[in-house]
Amino acid sequence: MTLFEYKGDIVIVDMGLQFPEDDMPGIDYIIPNIEYLKGKEKNILGVVITHGHLDHVGAISHLIPKLGYPPVYATGLSRGIILKRHDDFPKAGKLEIHTVKKTDNLTLGHFKIEFFHVNHNIPDSVGIALHTPEGTVIHTGDFKFDHSPIGDEPADIARIVQLSSKDGGVLVMLSDSTNAEDSGYTISERQVQESLDAIIKDAPGRVIAATFGSLISRIQQLVNIAEKYGRKLAIDGYSMKTNVEIAKELGFIKAKKDTFIPINDVSKYAPEKIIIACTGAQGEGEAVLMRIAHKEHRFVQIQKGDSVIFSSSVVPGNERSVSSLKDILMYQGARIIHSKLMDVHASGHAQAEDLKLMLNLVKPKYLIPIHGNHYMLRMHGAIAESIGMPSENVLILGNGKPTVFKDGKAHILESRVPTDYVMVDGLGIGDVGQVVLRDRQLMAQDGIFVIISTIDTKTGKLKGNPDIISRGFVYLRESQELLMDVRKRVRKIIEGSFATEHTLNASYLKDEIRNKTGQFLFQKTERRPMVIPVIIEI
Amino acid sequence: MTLFEYKGDIVIVDMGLQFPEDDMPGIDYIIPNIEYLKGKEKNILGVVITHGHLDHVGAISHLIPKLGYPPVYATGLSRGIILKRHDDFPKAGKLEIHTVKKTDNLTLGHFKIEFFHVNHNIPDSVGIALHTPEGTVIHTGDFKFDHSPIGDEPADIARIVQLSSKDGGVLVMLSDSTNAEDSGYTISERQVQESLDAIIKDAPGRVIAATFGSLISRIQQLVNIAEKYGRKLAIDGYSMKTNVEIAKELGFIKAKKDTFIPINDVSKYAPEKIIIACTGAQGEGEAVLMRIAHKEHRFVQIQKGDSVIFSSSVVPGNERSVSSLKDILMYQGARIIHSKLMDVHASGHAQAEDLKLMLNLVKPKYLIPIHGNHYMLRMHGAIAESIGMPSENVLILGNGKPTVFKDGKAHILESRVPTDYVMVDGLGIGDVGQVVLRDRQLMAQDGIFVIISTIDTKTGKLKGNPDIISRGFVYLRESQELLMDVRKRVRKIIEGSFATEHTLNASYLKDEIRNKTGQFLFQKTERRPMVIPVIIEI
Repeated sequence: MTLFEYKGDIVIVDMGLQFPEDDMPGIDYIIPNIEYLKGKEKNILGVVITHGHLDHVGAISHLIPKLGYPPVYATGLSRGIILKRHDDFPKAGKLEIHTVKKTDNLTLGHFKIEFFHVNHNIPDSVGIALHTPEGTVIHTGDFKFDHSPIGDEPADIARIVQLSSKDGGVLVMLSDSTNAEDSGYTISERQVQESLDAIIKDAPGRVIAATFGSLISRIQQLVNIAEKYGRKLAIDGYSMKTNVEIAKELGFIKAKKDTFIPINDVSKYAPEKIIIACTGAQGEGEAVLMRIAHKEHRFVQIQKGDSVIFSSSVVPGNERSVSSLKDILMYQGARIIHSKLMDVHASGHAQAEDLKLMLNLVKPKYLIPIHGNHYMLRMHGAIAESIGMPSENVLILGNGKPTVFKDGKAHILESRVPTDYVMVDGLGIGDVGQVVLRDRQLMAQDGIFVIISTIDTKTGKLKGNPDIISRGFVYLRESQELLMDVRKRVRKIIEGSFATEHTLNASYLKDEIRNKTGQFLFQKTERRPMVIPVIIEI
Repeated sequence: MTLFEYKGDIVIVDMGLQFPEDDMPGIDYIIPNIEYLKGKEKNILGVVITHGHLDHVGAISHLIPKLGYPPVYATGLSRGIILKRHDDFPKAGKLEIHTVKKTDNLTLGHFKIEFFHVNHNIPDSVGIALHTPEGTVIHTGDFKFDHSPIGDEPADIARIVQLSSKDGGVLVMLSDSTNAEDSGYTISERQVQESLDAIIKDAPGRVIAATFGSLISRIQQLVNIAEKYGRKLAIDGYSMKTNVEIAKELGFIKAKKDTFIPINDVSKYAPEKIIIACTGAQGEGEAVLMRIAHKEHRFVQIQKGDSVIFSSSVVPGNERSVSSLKDILMYQGARIIHSKLMDVHASGHAQAEDLKLMLNLVKPKYLIPIHGNHYMLRMHGAIAESIGMPSENVLILGNGKPTVFKDGKAHILESRVPTDYVMVDGLGIGDVGQVVLRDRQLMAQDGIFVIISTIDTKTGKLKGNPDIISRGFVYLRESQELLMDVRKRVRKIIEGSFATEHTLNASYLKDEIRNKTGQFLFQKTERRPMVIPVIIEI
């Protein structure tokens, strides 16, 4: 989410979610922190969307209600995806959402906004030109150049040049850095289609193509190939089905009437007449391909002759699950094809040479590399410098770092806008903080060990033995001796303390029990479960 | 760990550990299951080691005592590493460990054993020939061919040919499949040295080279470069320091007397006179590079002009931590060089063309691809078939799949030897099973919610309010209303039940409290903490 502000007028570009880091167990996703906008809701004149992926639209249903329902502007497919997702938020109220065409002019206060078509792996993606009295800002969104895309037009280079040369040129460009580390050019979707074609043409049985649920252009490629070879195409996976439905409805997937069949009909056709497109290429636990591999899918099980195409890159962090998924599928007799073997996937993001092309077309005075971690932003900056941009004109900004442009000059402010993570977990938004996360991590490491002591306040004697509840630490039935030992020590702490103090000091006892039991358990097991003492006074 | 058995005689090759999978929180590592060997301890004539990496020697100190202390045979460096690690197991008893030279002949019962030198990224690595009355078995260990290694000799191709042509040729080869997926040849360590040389030659300040703690050959390269440019070399990181000490002592690292300096002396030299070799290239939390990045290192902090070389590949699963580590170092002003940018790392494993070379040298009748997941074993098999091995002679065996060779023919048995994971967690070996792991996973997702109800058995009334202990679920102070609601519901369940039953049925009450509270919490939060009811009867 990027904010542009001029004399009080605010325009927001995109409102996405971020998937959780490794050290955030149980968290669904992270949404932008909108603290800076509190009290400025009335100044927000519009939220302009570049494309329909969740990392660009996924926080809309959470945040728009909190921002006083500013109008959202999106191209047709993005709008369809936003509205469909909004159905899952019945209490969030109605969105004001306008469809924009790529030729539209939009005036939002001091901002004049225009769009240009870019390629990405979802159709109807745009970059944005924001003309302001201080100069023109170009925001590329996620983009690549594809001169022979499938189900899409090539990025509109002529329009990029035209918009960039208005008003004496572009002051600053914010540009996608995701693939700045990769040299050369992104391969064309045409090449991907040709690889898929070659595989499917000769496949002896069914073809199962797994990819991201949002990769609409890949589905169009499979439609084209299915129709060429007289196969039927079945889609499975909630996000993929939803996105395909929207894209078909809005004309972004073009198919003959009988090309698509429901997934429950695949067994009605000969194997060599079937393509299945599904989710799960990342080895996600609940996705379709994993369910097929674990024989938990209602209609599809691997059979001899099946070819499984992993038509995606592996998202960092998923390598091990993907390897194990491939193993299971192979064991069951499937042939596996993935992007290391053939060009069955093209990234949606510009590589180094594409980034140079964008820089040469837009010729911005300043570059703010966006999207990607600090390292990639720096790589993008180095690319700009390598083709002649002065290094002081490359602005590597952290999240929440405000920058003021005045009289054609950039000034990075010392201050910082709050960008602490707002974590979404189930229905809770922002209620899981560092304490809760740290507890989850600790319990995942060595479990929990609760000791409940019922004490007679008059005598200071324990009633019966302390109850011990432990999970994730040791298998209790096999550790009876250890537990007896702990009970004995706890009794000694409690009754010993009463004998000297003649009164029951619960908070002192809890500290003692926690520390001494923790030490004892570590000494015996070299594990550090979370020890929680409970004192019940009767 | 591989077992060879002939007429009751047993020889074991390697005894390593495996690092835990993603779904095994808190587990230190996994060791081989030795159930099959119970009762056969006396038959084990020797444990023969290929090289000193933990995945080949790391279970020795755990298992040798349980197997009746069979003799271990290892080359000098491997022996040094095994003995050093054994110091951490004071109760494990003394190992019987013999140093073997690469020219040695070893007779263990029916087995005649010979060695051949291979390259790997630790010196003194060998492959093993086991001559048996049924034919010769070649076990490559981890290997690559390097015709210009650093601090090592090239793999002994002449000897491989010679051993393989004895006794009418090789019956079966077990060969390393780790890099079967990678085409071409592994690059030479000479090339790595040249890249490192080029970087360090021009580095304006200190050079910090992070790599695996066991990568002894990389240290020799840094020694060579340090001496060439008059820099000093400091080593930091427990495993690296230990391995370097052993390797220096045994002559596997050759350095001038004053090349190495202690890490606490680095500030005594000008930055351009310093190289630091350290652990942490995988972004591991406790390793040296992470401590430097987080300013927790006692002697080294990043300063302007520092170059940090990630001289390793990224182990699958570590991509995100490595990215974030690079970010932090860059923020602090370091220049980052990694293997995507320059050849600053060579893998220790044969790639496709190297595997073909080994197959052509050994000319085995059968191939058993080993090391690597099922997918890689298959790739290795496909490579063998591509150069003429009949597909029925490629044996893709799962763990624990026994295969009998008789009269020159292989028979894969239907049975399976137990290979269930034996997990090591702290001092516990095999005491963490699926139940404990599942509990850890559940608690990591949504936390734990303990409800303690103290009930008067005579009246069925609660004493006070139920105590609630929750961790990793919600931040309790901000959820008082939810907790009050739960307490009210629990009271209703308990007192309602007593009113109709006139007796206290604790196990019924616990079920009711668990189910109803679980449902209620899910409905309110869409989270499923582990709900644990405790009933204290007074």
